[in-house]
Amino acid sequence: MTSMLEAGTLVTLCSASKKDRFLVTLEDGGKLETRLGIILHDQIMSAGYGGKVLSHNGSVFYVTKPTLEEYLRKIKRRTQIVFPKEAGYILLQLDIRPGARVLECGTGSGGMTTVFASFVGDEGRVYSYDVREEFIELARRNCRKWRVEQRVSFKVRHISEGFDEREVDAVFLDLPDPWNYLPQVRDALALGRRMGALLPTFNQIERFLRSLEENAFVDVEVVEILHRALKSDPDRLRPEDRMIGHTGYLIFATPILYSNRGDGVI
Amino acid sequence: MTSMLEAGTLVTLCSASKKDRFLVTLEDGGKLETRLGIILHDQIMSAGYGGKVLSHNGSVFYVTKPTLEEYLRKIKRRTQIVFPKEAGYILLQLDIRPGARVLECGTGSGGMTTVFASFVGDEGRVYSYDVREEFIELARRNCRKWRVEQRVSFKVRHISEGFDEREVDAVFLDLPDPWNYLPQVRDALALGRRMGALLPTFNQIERFLRSLEENAFVDVEVVEILHRALKSDPDRLRPEDRMIGHTGYLIFATPILYSNRGDGVI
Amino acid sequence: MTSMLEAGTLVTLCSASKKDRFLVTLEDGGKLETRLGIILHDQIMSAGYGGKVLSHNGSVFYVTKPTLEEYLRKIKRRTQIVFPKEAGYILLQLDIRPGARVLECGTGSGGMTTVFASFVGDEGRVYSYDVREEFIELARRNCRKWRVEQRVSFKVRHISEGFDEREVDAVFLDLPDPWNYLPQVRDALALGRRMGALLPTFNQIERFLRSLEENAFVDVEVVEILHRALKSDPDRLRPEDRMIGHTGYLIFATPILYSNRGDGVI
Amino acid sequence: MTSMLEAGTLVTLCSASKKDRFLVTLEDGGKLETRLGIILHDQIMSAGYGGKVLSHNGSVFYVTKPTLEEYLRKIKRRTQIVFPKEAGYILLQLDIRPGARVLECGTGSGGMTTVFASFVGDEGRVYSYDVREEFIELARRNCRKWRVEQRVSFKVRHISEGFDEREVDAVFLDLPDPWNYLPQVRDALALGRRMGALLPTFNQIERFLRSLEENAFVDVEVVEILHRALKSDPDRLRPEDRMIGHTGYLIFATPILYSNRGDGVI
Repeated sequence: MTSMLEAGTLVTLCSASKKDRFLVTLEDGGKLETRLGIILHDQIMSAGYGGKVLSHNGSVFYVTKPTLEEYLRKIKRRTQIVFPKEAGYILLQLDIRPGARVLECGTGSGGMTTVFASFVGDEGRVYSYDVREEFIELARRNCRKWRVEQRVSFKVRHISEGFDEREVDAVFLDLPDPWNYLPQVRDALALGRRMGALLPTFNQIERFLRSLEENAFVDVEVVEILHRALKSDPDRLRPEDRMIGHTGYLIFATPILYSNRGDGVI
Repeated sequence: MTSMLEAGTLVTLCSASKKDRFLVTLEDGGKLETRLGIILHDQIMSAGYGGKVLSHNGSVFYVTKPTLEEYLRKIKRRTQIVFPKEAGYILLQLDIRPGARVLECGTGSGGMTTVFASFVGDEGRVYSYDVREEFIELARRNCRKWRVEQRVSFKVRHISEGFDEREVDAVFLDLPDPWNYLPQVRDALALGRRMGALLPTFNQIERFLRSLEENAFVDVEVVEILHRALKSDPDRLRPEDRMIGHTGYLIFATPILYSNRGDGVI
Repeated sequence: MTSMLEAGTLVTLCSASKKDRFLVTLEDGGKLETRLGIILHDQIMSAGYGGKVLSHNGSVFYVTKPTLEEYLRKIKRRTQIVFPKEAGYILLQLDIRPGARVLECGTGSGGMTTVFASFVGDEGRVYSYDVREEFIELARRNCRKWRVEQRVSFKVRHISEGFDEREVDAVFLDLPDPWNYLPQVRDALALGRRMGALLPTFNQIERFLRSLEENAFVDVEVVEILHRALKSDPDRLRPEDRMIGHTGYLIFATPILYSNRGDGVI
Repeated sequence: MTSMLEAGTLVTLCSASKKDRFLVTLEDGGKLETRLGIILHDQIMSAGYGGKVLSHNGSVFYVTKPTLEEYLRKIKRRTQIVFPKEAGYILLQLDIRPGARVLECGTGSGGMTTVFASFVGDEGRVYSYDVREEFIELARRNCRKWRVEQRVSFKVRHISEGFDEREVDAVFLDLPDPWNYLPQVRDALALGRRMGALLPTFNQIERFLRSLEENAFVDVEVVEILHRALKSDPDRLRPEDRMIGHTGYLIFATPILYSNRGDGVI
């Protein structure tokens, strides 16, 4: 019933206590050193998905297939990344689907790039802009590890110079000053489609909302998504003592045609 | 720049005040009656995506392309449905992707069925079980309207009889008593993959957690996702006065191989 | 064991289902008409605290002593009032205690006036300013009904004219533009003591924070207090479906002596 | 304008950055050592409330009067204590007021004892039971430091032996198994008055709710109070990154007379 895992496979090692978790790319002769002891990659390959391995000092670990939720949390980052709680909601609000063409700016550590690339599939395409070359490189590596790099066109360019793409299905902005670039967004986005942005402070939201209004974006939604975990002990069921109090606010909006204006209503 | 919309297209009409929203399947000669006046489908077709239409008494509406987030909120339902805030998070936790084979039980009104079917693409497949034939019919109609019906196999059967599928990539349970069916879930799920469930009460969570432990499911996560909207007025930025206080808790877990047991650790 | 209740007593009638609740001032020959039937005040007087009365058509009600929490929720109002969740926290942050002298502005419907007057006791004093005479009248009636009117000095005056009091133990501002009146607050407050304000929007908070800094108020705290109720059914324990998403933010700060400035640090 | 502070006074030293805070009882010749440098108590006495002091290496601190909110957060503890967000709400729900007689069990570190004793004033009385003598001693010291010890009768006794008091205005239980002691609560509480309890887990809430029903307590409320702070930077207004996700749930209820039963309704 168990199948051997091959070198090159990305797996999750999860301690029985669930406190320690590792994302490991298996290598022949590889070794994982943890505070709960050493595990050989060969052990993991033999155990297979759903299998159990013991570290050299007897600690129990399980082998599972990493999910995008986990990958996103563990991704190598040099910036704040979008959390799974927000990433999932963005997919539905921007109506991402297999085959979609999605434009994002900036790339950052590539967390959201990986999410978009996972869901657009091989028929879709992600265009990811960032002015900082080192971030593009990091994002490229993060996408490669999740095996979706081939679906992404990375571009080192400042958004003020505009985007190459037209008629894309969605635009997502993770920038400190998205209010400066709404004309560029409008030029790239297909009619009737939606843009999203992530902003941490109320000052930014206020400014962005004014800009959306001036640029004839309608159907504006501002929302925060909160993730509240429970301890999973059935005898002492209760919320976790600590929670993330804030990551950022999501803003979504849809541009309408200017040609419909001229009557003062927008 | 504007393109005519064809009969049969599903569009969103959104009032300038954003308070009124309509999902409309366009028909030649069709008519939409709202408390803000009457709009002819012909007007909508001519306006196109991003266009503006005026009702017979002058109220302004915009035409946009419906998103999955909106469709899910507006779906015809006879049951509580999964909300967008949860649906997005489920996609990441269950690692849904184009080409995936996903099993769900029960179908209910088909909200989550539509979400899964949207993201698995034409290469993927959703198997949706419910014992209540009328719900299957409703879900089928809801999937059809979103044009993903062809990706779903609906089955009128009680979960206790087991699933036909093996090696599926994910299982999602929206049932009042998921604790009774973990062996069936284990039989259907590929090794190392994850199952999810939605439960509204703590009594259910407690019981389910015990059952997960007895059935050797590990890496358990219990979480609630909260959606808190802000009013989008930049001069009076503040959270909405009312919010949804509760929909349900999400529980995720991964079965491990029984053959690895026998040492009392699980 | 039961004691008769006298005319003039304020009591709570609470239906067995807990859905209907009434605050009643008992009168000889009085009558309470509810959607669950009619109850005579004489019945309530005989039943006494902890007693049960049946309406003319058999609905069950219990007689309890009203709490300040309940009074505050039921108070006659013409303005948004401070909620119990905020009122309690304000008491601790402003260090209200028996014998304290508390200044508030504006009075509004008198909700917070009633709270302060309840906790300062007969040795304390509340000074409540509002420019709108009709609100002062409403607040006076609300304090009278809770039998604390004698502890309050109401003053019809605009805050810009300054307060009569000096060396008060706490100041609370429920005004749309508290940033305009920090010198007046400073003049009234005893050294080392704290002021609080309630503000609904982020725009107001931003402006108020700048003003606090300019006016040498330190130890600033901005907080929102959320109240999340659970349904009290032990078989289906879960949060309530709806909750209040927003009432307002509380800001607390303490002025320091200007004479200590002059070094650019504040 | 500044007044000298006397030895024996409890003051707050708050660093300009607001990150460091100290509760200090002033002593002649005393010295406060902090990671931001050393401050002499004499400096604090001369600065007075609202004054500024510099540590030996130039760090700025302000002198303010400690509030009950701060005292509660800083109290010496050997147990989880009730937080200010809950303490304030309890005051309103239990209708504590100057002159009230309040019974609590168990005493714990004396946090809630201090709160009750502060608000009942010199005419009121707090009766605080705990079976653990060392906790009573800690609580006594905590009340003494806040100068309310004389209003409290501490009793080393297990609740199962019952309370000495009758007709008290409120009862508060901070025990792991409050469901075992509802008859004792009923015996002590005046008719029509309310009891409160703090419980951290859903399992406990479920069990307590069943017990409340069996013991004819009505008007049950279960609630959690959440405290969400904002960073107080007006240029980057946003919630704090981390928040306390859980302290406990508050349950309030009022016993009704058994003599009114016998009809199956309760």
